[in-house]
Amino acid sequence: MNIILLSGGSGQRLWPLSNSIRSKQFIKLFKNDSDEYESMVQRVYHQIKAVDKSASIMVATSRSQVSAIKNQLGEQVSICIEPCRRDTFPAIALAVANLFYEKRLGGEEAVVICPVDPYVDHTYYEAVNRLGELAAKGDANITLMGIEPSYPSEKYGYIIPDTGENISRVKEFKEKPTEKAAREYISKGALWNAGVFALKVGYLMEIAHKMLVFTDYQDLLSKYDKLPKISFDYAVVEKEDRIQVMRYAGAWKDVGTWNMMAEVMADRTKGNVTLDNTCDNTNVINELDIPILCMGCKDMVIAASSDGILVADKEQSSYMKPYVEKMGMEAMYAEKSWGTYNVIDVQDSFMTIKVLLNAGHRMKYHSHKRRDEVWTIVAGEGTVVLDGESREVSAGDVIKIEHGHKHTIVARTTLNVIEVQIGEDIDVKDKEIFDEELHL
Amino acid sequence: MNIILLSGGSGQRLWPLSNSIRSKQFIKLFKNDSDEYESMVQRVYHQIKAVDKSASIMVATSRSQVSAIKNQLGEQVSICIEPCRRDTFPAIALAVANLFYEKRLGGEEAVVICPVDPYVDHTYYEAVNRLGELAAKGDANITLMGIEPSYPSEKYGYIIPDTGENISRVKEFKEKPTEKAAREYISKGALWNAGVFALKVGYLMEIAHKMLVFTDYQDLLSKYDKLPKISFDYAVVEKEDRIQVMRYAGAWKDVGTWNMMAEVMADRTKGNVTLDNTCDNTNVINELDIPILCMGCKDMVIAASSDGILVADKEQSSYMKPYVEKMGMEAMYAEKSWGTYNVIDVQDSFMTIKVLLNAGHRMKYHSHKRRDEVWTIVAGEGTVVLDGESREVSAGDVIKIEHGHKHTIVARTTLNVIEVQIGEDIDVKDKEIFDEELHL
Repeated sequence: MNIILLSGGSGQRLWPLSNSIRSKQFIKLFKNDSDEYESMVQRVYHQIKAVDKSASIMVATSRSQVSAIKNQLGEQVSICIEPCRRDTFPAIALAVANLFYEKRLGGEEAVVICPVDPYVDHTYYEAVNRLGELAAKGDANITLMGIEPSYPSEKYGYIIPDTGENISRVKEFKEKPTEKAAREYISKGALWNAGVFALKVGYLMEIAHKMLVFTDYQDLLSKYDKLPKISFDYAVVEKEDRIQVMRYAGAWKDVGTWNMMAEVMADRTKGNVTLDNTCDNTNVINELDIPILCMGCKDMVIAASSDGILVADKEQSSYMKPYVEKMGMEAMYAEKSWGTYNVIDVQDSFMTIKVLLNAGHRMKYHSHKRRDEVWTIVAGEGTVVLDGESREVSAGDVIKIEHGHKHTIVARTTLNVIEVQIGEDIDVKDKEIFDEELHL
Repeated sequence: MNIILLSGGSGQRLWPLSNSIRSKQFIKLFKNDSDEYESMVQRVYHQIKAVDKSASIMVATSRSQVSAIKNQLGEQVSICIEPCRRDTFPAIALAVANLFYEKRLGGEEAVVICPVDPYVDHTYYEAVNRLGELAAKGDANITLMGIEPSYPSEKYGYIIPDTGENISRVKEFKEKPTEKAAREYISKGALWNAGVFALKVGYLMEIAHKMLVFTDYQDLLSKYDKLPKISFDYAVVEKEDRIQVMRYAGAWKDVGTWNMMAEVMADRTKGNVTLDNTCDNTNVINELDIPILCMGCKDMVIAASSDGILVADKEQSSYMKPYVEKMGMEAMYAEKSWGTYNVIDVQDSFMTIKVLLNAGHRMKYHSHKRRDEVWTIVAGEGTVVLDGESREVSAGDVIKIEHGHKHTIVARTTLNVIEVQIGEDIDVKDKEIFDEELHL
């Protein structure tokens, strides 16, 4: 099976664990068979591989997610990076063009496109696999997955099939309806549109070449920022008559809010948390080093990270988006390709950051215009490069980097550094990269 | 009026704002006339001075509270330090001996002894003043304040007076009763024993000299750790027949729990806090730099400091003590005579601390056996002394202090330092003081 996982989203609804840098699919609240925490993207990857060991998986995403994806899935995972945000049609066309022109997948091959974030069991990916087989057979140009609705939701689009059979032609699509309309659709056998569909590579390439002028993947990539913002529905689905839908009746959950996440997370609490015996139906996630004590909490979700602390009634937590937007903080925690950084203190003219570099990794070679930095190596061993000069460092060593000076650090073992930034105008964007000058 | 304020307590019931170092009376949740936050100890001090400008106030406390008291009340406040913990009789005898032998207060002078932590208005300290006058008159050897009970509490001892008059002889004392017994006492005109009493200095010195062998204050102080642990009730009250009580009918609140503190704190929230419009009867105190978002919280108290995070139903929060004891963390925040320190990150072999030194102040000259330290000066100016050598420092300077080396820092202006401690066995007790060697 060929599968393109769409990994997007800025994840304000799972604040403070998701932020502008860390999307919800990277939060580790599930567990794998070895009882280790894993994220949604790791879970999905393992689920697909369990159904089809030889499945070829490509993750289509934005640049900001690349580090997290590589950290969580490993360097060998296939990633298609959208250089900037267009709409769904250019994004899907880019990923399929990558398969066709770069990975040399034949035009007759089917590919399944699906979002990375539903919480499902293995039967779902068996259905995804079957969707690919149906597309390859060619009875229709597009084969959708339709989820059997469990309640008249106003949050999803609906697919109305011609018949009640397992596989049926699609009669029509309905946008997110009112609850009343949803009941009516469901009485007619309507299904939720989960955004999962399969088609042949050649079919999509033909449409792409008609609508976008390009020669191959590299050409499309270079023109990406000038492509029109067109949705996949508008460009493809609405113009196509040969569409079929396959029913899926298994469990399917959208874990886009804390209320839903609380239902499926592996443990009721994670991190340093104490609940007294009067707490009830309460989930607590603590990423901070200090303890959380909960007493008499009913139907609540509590989440703490270096970005902030949420204390919410479960139902009410679904409405957090405007509040999170208003707080508009910069992310205090980020996964990088080389490790993690964690802002531990912010003041007007100085900021303290805990940096963890994974063994064998390094930061980019860079400099800052408006801030000085002091690195205190607190654990591990590595090499610091400062203005072209290398120096071996280990726990206890201190390196002072004045503004304007190029620097990087290479971890030989896992390396912990406390970085103190000093300056009147500290800004993540104050960074120039000189990687090409670095010769290690 | 001569007044001894008893300032004790480790304050586990207001965790995480109170801890083993910071007692509840130092938490700033009230406001003064200039709309600035003030603590209970500051509030009480101002209230006494408002009733009697020339009141002579002595704070009787333990060594661990001295820094916080001086920071909050100023260097000129009179403090009597208990060298170690004995019971209430030695503590009160020590403070009164200080007044008699050191401050040369006459034996016929009255002194009022009261705890530092009730939340009251100015009429209370008018009553305290009157209590002193009654003691000076000499109609009884001990004059107690009796609080008119507002409900049959099981938390307080009761005083049963002879008559219902404003001032009456005491018939008997009752220990903390059951609710049923409390109702019965109240029906007989019983009053709450608030631990406030007045007596003549000479009267107490006579009893003290009978029970404890000492010549003067300095002698008592030097023998303090060998004194018997005797309560004031056992040593004095139970043996005394000439005891009277004065009724007090004004407002009196014991703010020993979050539930009570929430009723009297100046603002419903303090710090970076957002409440959505479905929150109700909820108080939030945030001493961290990250935001707290509360949604749908009803009847709750939420408090966050570098020691931890409490999320509690108000009623339930009164039962926190055993949970806090079990967590048994070391304090992450402390007020020192020279400023504050704030632990911002703790790992196995390293710890990061944000230090604020007030202008003109310094740490003690000291060294550590088992940890190295790195100081990064992030704001302000001062002088570092390392093994006897002085060096001027300002923002951007870095000082590396290996274990075994003596060091201190003197703040010329307000000085901010990020201190990174590195070592396998970091412990607050790993500290040797060499202040006598320092010549600035």
